[in-house]
Amino acid sequence: MPYRAAVEDFNFLFDHVVDFEALRQTERFAEATDDVTRAILGEAGKLCDTVLAPLQRNGDLHPAKLENGVVRTSPGFAEGFKAIAEGGWIGMSADPEYGGMGLPMTLTSAVNEMMAGACLSLQLAPLMSQGQIEALEHHASDAVKALYLPKLISGEWTGTMNLTEPQAGSDVGALSCKAEERGDGTYAVSGQKIYISWGDNDLAENVCHLVLARLPGAPAGTKGISLFLVPKFVPDSEGNPGKRNGVSVVSLEHKMGLHGSPTAVMQYDDAVGWLIGAEQGGMAAMFTMMNNARLGVGGQGIGAAEGAYQHALAYALERKQGRTGEGGTGTIVDHADVRRMLLSMKADVFAARAIALSCAFASDMARATGGADWAARAAFLTPITKAFGTDTGIAVAEMGVQVHGGMGFIEETGAAQFSRDVRVTAIYEGTNGIQAMDLVARKMMDGGEAASRLLDEIEADAEAAREVFPNMADAVWQASETLREATEWLVSQDNLNTRFAGAVPYLRGFARVLGGHLHLKAAMADRGGAREKLARFYIQRLLPEHVGLLTHAQAGETELFAMSAEELAA
Amino acid sequence: MPYRAAVEDFNFLFDHVVDFEALRQTERFAEATDDVTRAILGEAGKLCDTVLAPLQRNGDLHPAKLENGVVRTSPGFAEGFKAIAEGGWIGMSADPEYGGMGLPMTLTSAVNEMMAGACLSLQLAPLMSQGQIEALEHHASDAVKALYLPKLISGEWTGTMNLTEPQAGSDVGALSCKAEERGDGTYAVSGQKIYISWGDNDLAENVCHLVLARLPGAPAGTKGISLFLVPKFVPDSEGNPGKRNGVSVVSLEHKMGLHGSPTAVMQYDDAVGWLIGAEQGGMAAMFTMMNNARLGVGGQGIGAAEGAYQHALAYALERKQGRTGEGGTGTIVDHADVRRMLLSMKADVFAARAIALSCAFASDMARATGGADWAARAAFLTPITKAFGTDTGIAVAEMGVQVHGGMGFIEETGAAQFSRDVRVTAIYEGTNGIQAMDLVARKMMDGGEAASRLLDEIEADAEAAREVFPNMADAVWQASETLREATEWLVSQDNLNTRFAGAVPYLRGFARVLGGHLHLKAAMADRGGAREKLARFYIQRLLPEHVGLLTHAQAGETELFAMSAEELAA
Repeated sequence: MPYRAAVEDFNFLFDHVVDFEALRQTERFAEATDDVTRAILGEAGKLCDTVLAPLQRNGDLHPAKLENGVVRTSPGFAEGFKAIAEGGWIGMSADPEYGGMGLPMTLTSAVNEMMAGACLSLQLAPLMSQGQIEALEHHASDAVKALYLPKLISGEWTGTMNLTEPQAGSDVGALSCKAEERGDGTYAVSGQKIYISWGDNDLAENVCHLVLARLPGAPAGTKGISLFLVPKFVPDSEGNPGKRNGVSVVSLEHKMGLHGSPTAVMQYDDAVGWLIGAEQGGMAAMFTMMNNARLGVGGQGIGAAEGAYQHALAYALERKQGRTGEGGTGTIVDHADVRRMLLSMKADVFAARAIALSCAFASDMARATGGADWAARAAFLTPITKAFGTDTGIAVAEMGVQVHGGMGFIEETGAAQFSRDVRVTAIYEGTNGIQAMDLVARKMMDGGEAASRLLDEIEADAEAAREVFPNMADAVWQASETLREATEWLVSQDNLNTRFAGAVPYLRGFARVLGGHLHLKAAMADRGGAREKLARFYIQRLLPEHVGLLTHAQAGETELFAMSAEELAA
Repeated sequence: MPYRAAVEDFNFLFDHVVDFEALRQTERFAEATDDVTRAILGEAGKLCDTVLAPLQRNGDLHPAKLENGVVRTSPGFAEGFKAIAEGGWIGMSADPEYGGMGLPMTLTSAVNEMMAGACLSLQLAPLMSQGQIEALEHHASDAVKALYLPKLISGEWTGTMNLTEPQAGSDVGALSCKAEERGDGTYAVSGQKIYISWGDNDLAENVCHLVLARLPGAPAGTKGISLFLVPKFVPDSEGNPGKRNGVSVVSLEHKMGLHGSPTAVMQYDDAVGWLIGAEQGGMAAMFTMMNNARLGVGGQGIGAAEGAYQHALAYALERKQGRTGEGGTGTIVDHADVRRMLLSMKADVFAARAIALSCAFASDMARATGGADWAARAAFLTPITKAFGTDTGIAVAEMGVQVHGGMGFIEETGAAQFSRDVRVTAIYEGTNGIQAMDLVARKMMDGGEAASRLLDEIEADAEAAREVFPNMADAVWQASETLREATEWLVSQDNLNTRFAGAVPYLRGFARVLGGHLHLKAAMADRGGAREKLARFYIQRLLPEHVGLLTHAQAGETELFAMSAEELAA
C-alpha cells in the first residue's frame, strides 16, 4: 500500500471543522470555491502519490553531497522539485501580482502537509522558499519584489533562511555576522551561518539567502539586527543570475535523518546583499518568515505522521501473526494492542491536522477581514501547531516502528526513516521548548484573552453537542474547565520562570483539549460514522492525559531549581 | 564529561531501597558482604568508564561486517570483550561449580546496566551468554553443563538465542525449524532463524546457539517445540572446537542503530545439536533464558538512559545560550525547560533502575529462600522492568537529543546514537506490547494477588512516610489506591481482549506509581538531600500521569474494534 495523500480528510475538515465557507465569503478568498479547493487538493494529492512519494527512500539512501563546493541533490529530486514548481505549488498563497495564486494558507497548509508526508526532505526546499516569499512581500522594496518574487514563486530560484551561528542558536540576539554599506545602496555581508536547510542545491539556477546581520554601531541583542537578501549569483541588469557572490558552502552536516535535505554551514565574505525592511528592523521581518515557517514545520510533523501511519497500517494489514479469533483478518490488525497503537496514531494525526488548519484558517481570516481577534487566535495557535504537530510526528513515527516489530528496526522497511527524518522538526524553527515559552509569555501578554476566547468556543460547542453525545461533550467541557483554571493560574504568575517551568506540559495539555474539541466537532458531522468512532477513542483514552499534563504545568519552578549542578551530576 | 558509571546510585539503592542486607542474611548470598558489593561495583565501574565507553562510537561508525561468511566485529570490541570476560563479569551470577561467582542477580543487574550505558552494542554479547548459561544450568544434562558452562562463563565461547523465524515472531509457536534424532544421542537441526543478536563473532573461539525446533510428529504450536544447543564448531573429544558444524550466517541486517552488534540471519543445515531439557519441553527451557534476558534488556534501556542523561547534562553545563539571570552558570542548565528535561530524565532513570533492582532482588530472594511470594513478585515485576526500562531508555535518549538542540540531530555529538541504539530494546525479547499482555494475563492468573501484595507494601511505606513528607506520602498513597481500583477492574474482566486493550497503559501506570513509591523510599533515606529533591520533582510532575494512563487502561476493547480495516485506511 503506497502513500496516498489524505485528500478526503482535508475536504472533510474544510467542510465541517474549520469553516472554509467563511473564508469564501470574504472578498480576498472569494475565488477559493468548493470546486476549486477540491480540484486543487486532488491535483496535489496526485503529485504526492505518484511523483514525490517514490523519492522518499532516495533521499535517505543517497544523501545530498557537497562536490567541489556545489551541492548535488539526491537522485530524482531535481525532477520532483520541477514538478512542484510547475504545478504552481510554491506560490499557492503568494501575491498574484508576482505570479502567485493568492489562495488561503488553509489550503496551502493542506498541500504542504501532503507533500511532507510524501517526501519530507524534498518538501523542505519549497517550504523555505514560501517563507522567504512571504517575508519579501511584507518587507522588501518594490524593486526587490519585482525582481525576486516571480523567480521564487516559479521555482526558478529558491530561498533559505540564515539565523543560526555557532554561538547564537535559540538566542538569535547573540549573532555576530556583520554588514556594511557599500555606498551603492547595497551592503557587504560577512560571517558564518550554520544549520542552513537547503543552503545550496542544483535544483534551481539561483539560491537566495535571507541573512540576519549587524550593521556597524548597532546595539547588542535582537534590537540591533538587520535582514539582508544575499543571492548566490548577483542578478545582472536583465535580472538573470550574474557573477558569483561571496557566498560559499563550507560543509554539509552528517545528520540522524532527512539526508535528502542538505544542511549547510554557509560562509559569507563581503557578499553583496540588499537590506530587507528597516535598518535594525531585521527581527520584525524575520518573524514574518518564522511564523510562516512554524506553521509549515508543524505541517511537516503531521505529514510525516500521516506517512508513518499509512506505512504501519499497511504492514499490520498484511503481517500474519498469532491467533486472532473468528471473523478476524488473520493479521496483526486484529490484536488489541496493535489497534491501540494504530488508533492512537490516527487520532493524533487528525487532532494535529485540525489544529494546524485552525491556525492557518485564523491567519487567513485575519488577513481577509483585518480582525484583531483572528490575528490573536493565529498567533496563539502557531506555537501549539508547531510543537504539537512535530511532537505528534515523532510519537507517531515511533509507534510506527513499534507496529512493525523487529522489522521496524531494519532500515529496508522505511519505518525507521520516518522516525529519523521527522526528529529534527521538534528542533528547528525554534525548539518545541521555545514554542512553549512563546505560548506562555508573549502569547499571554493579553492577559489570557486569546486563550479564553478559544475556551469559550470549545465550551459552547460542547454544550451544543451535549444532547447528541452526552459523555463525549461532558468530557470535553470538563477538560476545558481544567484547562481554563491552568491558564488563569499561569497568567497570574508574574515570575516568567514560573510559567516557563510549566510551559511544555501546558502546551501539550492545551493541544490535548483542543484535539478533543475538534474530534467532537468531527463526530457531530459524521454521526455513527468512522469519525465518531475515532472521536470516542480519542476522548476516552487520549484526552485524559490532560490531567497529568496540566498538574505538571502548575507545579512552579522551585523544584526545578532546587538541585545544584553538582547534584544533577551526582 | 565522559561516561561515569552510576556506582554511587547503586550503592545507595542497595543500602536503602532494595534491602540488600536481607540477601546477605540468606545462606546462599552470605558472601555478598557490603565490602564485596562495593568493591565489585567500583571495579565494574572502572571497566565501564575506561575500557567500554570509549568503544561506543566505534560500533556505530564501523559496524560489524560479514566477510566471507565470518563476522568481523567493530574496532576494539575484541579487546573490550576480553576485558569483560577476564574480569569475570559474564559469570557473576553463574554457578561456582563451573567457574561462576554465584553472586546475586541484583548485583549482576547493576553491573550489566553500567556496561550497557557504556557500550550497548558490545554489552549485548555477554548478556546473551548469561541467558544461555542460566538456561543450561537449569535444563542441560550434566555432560553438556560440564563441557559448555566453563567455556561460556570464561568468555572463551559465547551464546545466542534462536527463536524467531520470518513467519514466527511474537508467535513463537508458528516456527518451522526441524530437528531429527541422528541415532547417536544427538540431533540434526535444520531451518532458518532471523534477528539473531551476535549470531556470529570473532571475539570467541566458538559460538553456541540455543535453537528452538520441532521434532518429527510434534504437535503444532508452542507445545511441540524442543530446544537444542548447536555449536558453530562441534567440540572434539578434548572439548575443544572441532569440525565446523552446519551453521552459517546468511546475512547481517542493516539497522537503525546498534550497528556494533551483528544481527544475523542464521541457516542450519543438518547441524549437530544436543537436546536441552525434555523433548517438547523447549518453551519451558527457553522461558528461563527469556526471563533472564527480559530483566537484562530492561537494564539495557536504563543503562542507555543513564548514558544519554550524562551526555545531555554535560552539554547543558557547557553550552552558553540566552540570558540566565544572576547567580546562574550562564549555560543552558539555568533555563527552566532544560531543567525540566534533565530532571525528568534523571528521575525516570532512578525510577526504572529501582524497579529493575526490585525485580532482581525478588528473584534472588526467591532463589535463596524458596519463597513463592518472592517468585511471584519477580514474575510480576519482570514485564514492568523490561517495558518501563526500555520505554525510559527511548524517552530519555529522545529528550537527550532535544537538550542538545540542533546539535542533537548531528551524528557527531553522539546524542542521536543513544536514541537509535536503544530503540530496539522495546522490540526484542518480546515487544513491550507483549510484556504488557503478559502482565495483565499470565501474571494476573493469581487473581491479582502479587499486585495486591505490592500495593499493600506501597501503602504501608506511604503511611510510614506521612509524618515526614505528608504531601508526597499522600500523593503516593492516593495513586496506589487508584492503581488498586484499576487492577481489580482488570482482574475482574474475563474477556482477555478487554485486558489486552488496556495492557500497555496499565503497565505504564503501574510503573509510574511504583516509581513514586521508590522515590519516596529514597527521600526518606536522604532527607533534605538531592534524593528528596528528585523525589519531589517526580511525585509532583511525573506521578500525576498515572491518572490518564489508568483511565485509558480501563476503557475496554469496544472502541478499539469499532473501526473496520477500511475505515482505518480511509
